[in-house]
Amino acid sequence: MKETRPILGVTMGDPSGAGPEILVKALCLPDVRALCRPIVIGDAATIRQAAQIVGSAIPVQPLARVSEATLADGVIEVLDLHNVDLSRLVYGRVDAMAGQAAYECVIQAVDLALAGEIAAVVTLALNKEALNLAGHHFAGHTELLAHRCGVKGVTMLLVAGNFRVSHVSTHVSLQEAIHRVRKERILEVARLTNQAVQRMGIATPRLAIAGLNPHSGEGGLFGDEEELHIRPAVEAAQAEGMNVVGPIPPDTIFFRMKVGQYDAVIAMYHDQGHIPVKVLAFEEGVNVTLGLPIIRTSVDHGTVFGKAGKGTASPTSMIAALKLAAQMAGTTAH
Amino acid sequence: MKETRPILGVTMGDPSGAGPEILVKALCLPDVRALCRPIVIGDAATIRQAAQIVGSAIPVQPLARVSEATLADGVIEVLDLHNVDLSRLVYGRVDAMAGQAAYECVIQAVDLALAGEIAAVVTLALNKEALNLAGHHFAGHTELLAHRCGVKGVTMLLVAGNFRVSHVSTHVSLQEAIHRVRKERILEVARLTNQAVQRMGIATPRLAIAGLNPHSGEGGLFGDEEELHIRPAVEAAQAEGMNVVGPIPPDTIFFRMKVGQYDAVIAMYHDQGHIPVKVLAFEEGVNVTLGLPIIRTSVDHGTVFGKAGKGTASPTSMIAALKLAAQMAGTTAH
Repeated sequence: MKETRPILGVTMGDPSGAGPEILVKALCLPDVRALCRPIVIGDAATIRQAAQIVGSAIPVQPLARVSEATLADGVIEVLDLHNVDLSRLVYGRVDAMAGQAAYECVIQAVDLALAGEIAAVVTLALNKEALNLAGHHFAGHTELLAHRCGVKGVTMLLVAGNFRVSHVSTHVSLQEAIHRVRKERILEVARLTNQAVQRMGIATPRLAIAGLNPHSGEGGLFGDEEELHIRPAVEAAQAEGMNVVGPIPPDTIFFRMKVGQYDAVIAMYHDQGHIPVKVLAFEEGVNVTLGLPIIRTSVDHGTVFGKAGKGTASPTSMIAALKLAAQMAGTTAH
Repeated sequence: MKETRPILGVTMGDPSGAGPEILVKALCLPDVRALCRPIVIGDAATIRQAAQIVGSAIPVQPLARVSEATLADGVIEVLDLHNVDLSRLVYGRVDAMAGQAAYECVIQAVDLALAGEIAAVVTLALNKEALNLAGHHFAGHTELLAHRCGVKGVTMLLVAGNFRVSHVSTHVSLQEAIHRVRKERILEVARLTNQAVQRMGIATPRLAIAGLNPHSGEGGLFGDEEELHIRPAVEAAQAEGMNVVGPIPPDTIFFRMKVGQYDAVIAMYHDQGHIPVKVLAFEEGVNVTLGLPIIRTSVDHGTVFGKAGKGTASPTSMIAALKLAAQMAGTTAH
């Protein structure tokens, strides 16, 4: 049988956190392996220690380059960056060495994906403070990825089962977010969302674009962004052939998606989209970056410093991130 | 045994909608009657027709004044305002006569509550357009109640089980909502929320005040309202003896309440509070108006024009609204 499972590059995240343990737990699962061939990008000794912590006997095999990988199921292969000194690593502590190691994993993963050596990148969490201590000044993972790929106009899509929400803006003040509600940006996010949901196997995604104001402004009584910016974006998206409705009142749109009326919602600001996802599926969703030239999914939680070294952190979000990346990368071998 | 069930005044809402049917269904339930003695404020002929539609044989007894009520369980007693001409009523249609009738029910209910003849008011939905057609220009039910009571500074509390959210502002644009995030107003809403949750049987409510910006501004990186306005309000509320924390990031605060960490959240704007309630409990919650000199609960849905006359509308929210009003009114007979 021809091998069709995509090769995924999996970054270990900040080694002071529970990322490496989560990674080992997820990569031991047959249902994950059935969908992808993973290569970890990180420090092999750190991954080996994580396997001991979670009580797994799976062998950890260091690689000097991706081409050395056997891509076999019963082993965790690690493109070994040799960048963690375990004798100095303290679980749960913000540390420049750990921040630097996490940074290097992301850079390596992006470069391999851009070169076509891996089909997608799946990331575990960074610690923003550690990243900064290591001299890398980015607001977060997404900004680092966009910078390395040399693109702008990215957006964050959160996925929890059939509940999908992309965002017109994310890490800006609510005041600034209002100013970013503009036709061209909404249309850009609608296009990216449509494309991404198609890659998730839905040929004609049913999209809904949220209003900004309560009751979508109630006919202009409380705010005019719906008429000035959102409705023109909806009409432009429809003219491009997308199956899209809006503006839909923000306080009912997510319930409608929950009961199956839409495949994805385009939210106008960070919390409009994050509040419903997190109240329904806290730290169990997947974060997908749209607008990059590569496929990237990520866990929807932080470094889990509080559980680091204990073997108790949940791999639920990581399992979902791996499966979604495999689906988006398609079934063609890379 | 001494009678301790409070007398609740129940308005029928817009008679073109499913309110009267919902009302009959809810008032036939023994578990509702076990907690309260209801008097409907509305049109007796409309209620009698609603009973026929839902297939109930319960007698409907018109009253000329509250003092005539027997307050017995096997009957629906209606303070009869004789204000609906059933030959002219069309279900599901916006109509000035219906708007006027709904308006008169609210006015009558407020006046009876202010006079102490009823212990609380429970309302079914108005149609805002019908209200306007009848010449009464209010943004909604709450504004009408505040006007009739002669008060300002009211707020909306949504309740769905142990999930409770009050709002610093409601029916204003998101831009205007940002400007209303000010220490004194947040403190006022915290006080009203604390008092209301105490009436719901929790002696020392655990309150949480939300941030306004993503991640509560992440230390000032995206917005400064948390430091300028919200934190001072939290500190002032603590100084008054309230058990309150904040600002808490908006995208995690509701999950924390869901798992039992808080008894109520103070949301900074309409959709911050409405999105999580409606995604978890669509049209099953209760809307409570705080800051009035009377107790008022309401269904958390509209007039249900689409199901009017069919007997199929759900009484879930109404049952919860009646039980909550009974609890808040206490067990002392009025």
